[in-house]
Amino acid sequence: MRTQVAIVGAGPAGLLLSHLLAADGIDSVIVESRSRAYVEARIRAGILESSTVQLLDSVGLGARLHREGDEHRGIYLQWPGERHHLDFVDLTGRSVWVYGQTEVTKDLGAARAADGQVIHYEAGETALHDLNTDHPYLTFRDADGAPRRLDADVVVGCDGSFGPSRAAVPPAERTVWQREYPYAWLGILADVAPSTDELIYAWHPDGFALHSMRSATVSRLYLQVPTGTDLADWSDDRIWAALAERLGDGVNGWSLTPGPITDKSVLPMRSFVQSPMRSSRLFLAGDAAHIVPPTGAKGLNLAVADVALLAPALVALLGKHDARLADAYSDTALRRVWRCTHFSWWMTTMLHTDDDPFTRQLQLSQLQWVARSDAGATGLAENYAGLPLGF
Amino acid sequence: MRTQVAIVGAGPAGLLLSHLLAADGIDSVIVESRSRAYVEARIRAGILESSTVQLLDSVGLGARLHREGDEHRGIYLQWPGERHHLDFVDLTGRSVWVYGQTEVTKDLGAARAADGQVIHYEAGETALHDLNTDHPYLTFRDADGAPRRLDADVVVGCDGSFGPSRAAVPPAERTVWQREYPYAWLGILADVAPSTDELIYAWHPDGFALHSMRSATVSRLYLQVPTGTDLADWSDDRIWAALAERLGDGVNGWSLTPGPITDKSVLPMRSFVQSPMRSSRLFLAGDAAHIVPPTGAKGLNLAVADVALLAPALVALLGKHDARLADAYSDTALRRVWRCTHFSWWMTTMLHTDDDPFTRQLQLSQLQWVARSDAGATGLAENYAGLPLGF
Repeated sequence: MRTQVAIVGAGPAGLLLSHLLAADGIDSVIVESRSRAYVEARIRAGILESSTVQLLDSVGLGARLHREGDEHRGIYLQWPGERHHLDFVDLTGRSVWVYGQTEVTKDLGAARAADGQVIHYEAGETALHDLNTDHPYLTFRDADGAPRRLDADVVVGCDGSFGPSRAAVPPAERTVWQREYPYAWLGILADVAPSTDELIYAWHPDGFALHSMRSATVSRLYLQVPTGTDLADWSDDRIWAALAERLGDGVNGWSLTPGPITDKSVLPMRSFVQSPMRSSRLFLAGDAAHIVPPTGAKGLNLAVADVALLAPALVALLGKHDARLADAYSDTALRRVWRCTHFSWWMTTMLHTDDDPFTRQLQLSQLQWVARSDAGATGLAENYAGLPLGF
Repeated sequence: MRTQVAIVGAGPAGLLLSHLLAADGIDSVIVESRSRAYVEARIRAGILESSTVQLLDSVGLGARLHREGDEHRGIYLQWPGERHHLDFVDLTGRSVWVYGQTEVTKDLGAARAADGQVIHYEAGETALHDLNTDHPYLTFRDADGAPRRLDADVVVGCDGSFGPSRAAVPPAERTVWQREYPYAWLGILADVAPSTDELIYAWHPDGFALHSMRSATVSRLYLQVPTGTDLADWSDDRIWAALAERLGDGVNGWSLTPGPITDKSVLPMRSFVQSPMRSSRLFLAGDAAHIVPPTGAKGLNLAVADVALLAPALVALLGKHDARLADAYSDTALRRVWRCTHFSWWMTTMLHTDDDPFTRQLQLSQLQWVARSDAGATGLAENYAGLPLGF
């Protein structure tokens, strides 16, 4: 097989990249280790920032998002006894949309299928070769176990933390920065209408809690728990009791409505950046190059921002033999990556409690300032709703 | 001796308090362990925020400040290769003044002397008594070694970290938060015109540097050094070489002019807050209740803000038997204390390098955001130039 762009990974980054390339006449083939059903059911982020929505709209992928998604003007920020609404639209003119990554992936999958995109799902033993030549290629076993070879002009790694692309950058070329946080999120999906119209980010002495949602009938909630937490220790009753306490059930007339829990998981929290995001004929996008803790809702949006830069760069490189955007890709993308990495770290460390009493006072003072100062509120809002592409 | 308000400490907080009280007809006596010459020569902060200047103006203490001080519109924020001016006036409508704490203390000392203020300098063995009764008193030995007793309606501790007032709050009543930072400042005074019109805050891989000034002919500069640094290891040449490197001598046509160093010292960096700031008939103000690292230029300004709250509270309490402001003093003052404690911590941790590469990237991303985003720049500016009293 031969294509112009070999894409490793059929998550939102890989699918969106193939979609944008196709719109500009560049051919691609995607190789994905999982099944389509698995990829489309994988529960991840649920908040789309303003520029993500604009991009999806501009390439014809926004119809169901606008029909079934939910536009939010902002978030609530709270600590014991106080809840403040930050109105991103008033502060920055930008909103966010609640629309699960699963739904984005399904929309992309449907669009790519309709377009005849070649995607090899359930590919095994995927390996990247000759990346520092003009004729890189992938090898893999297809879903039937047959060995395959895919020749291309460039290879793009959209295969997340665990795929082979990241490690295909020669060790001498790459630098890695990372941080593990000493806590995790216990996340649940529940078949119950959300008890709030917009997300509640709650600082609490017992630990952070977040009330999010997927739809009018499905709530998504999170609790800060220590790393190494065993789900077996968290009965549904214990989870709802902790959520009620941390989210302020009964405070100022607000109440949390519990419901049947349909999914329960523990999510680790870490920051990771690998630089550069290009090595010869290999480009990295999304989680393959960077991981953020979920507190700032940046993971999916950052992958989309990478692809929004990379697609025109590849179109220029392969369609017009103009390498300027491709040569600038890594530096340009990393500016936003570090901005979002910092913001995600900042939200995380502001909201998650630890045992140090001085840190707790700093957190509360920062929260109060963010809630009371226009500059503080706008700083959070512009990062959360998303800085313009190219900031 | 008997007075209405016994003030421990004749630094700027104690002197300003006596000045404000006298203006409203409340009598005070100050007891100070050092000599007047020592207090007035003690080198400390040199930046007055907007509300500090307004307060000094409003009580007739601003004449020399306006004549000899220097109004700055903002600061420079830099990291290798880039220097950005943050214009506080454009961002917040507020400026800052460069005017040494020594000068403020001299102006206050002159005004109090002219007013006949009783100040016992070089007092020894000062002790606070019966603070939880209606007749608290101080005992001390005066400059001649004679034992003295000063009876008062209230006692105010303006005696900094090392005075007796802080510890006079019963241990069961007080909570302390503190943090030591793993670095110090090596500060110099030099007889040379500043090489910059406004302060330069410089992040550098070798460590933070700050170019400040006292006047048109005296520069004040600082280098981040490890805690435990011995001044003997830092020759004048080594200091100027490090300052030149970190401040970017030769970059974009800028140069640092060295000159004779007239004073050299190592300043520890720590955060400290003691709460409450009142216990029965004892009130605390300034460094007696809180210490901030100097990076945000908040120490003196925070002491002034405390006094600006405390003076009317004592006037109401002693002049009109109205306890409401006095009862609110600690909570109200602590809101600003924590705001400034957070800001000072934030400036400090953003600008001082450590060995962790991820932290360095976060710092650079934050600096870039502050320099490029109106919200980021305004957030720094409004805290540095000083939030309005009562924020």
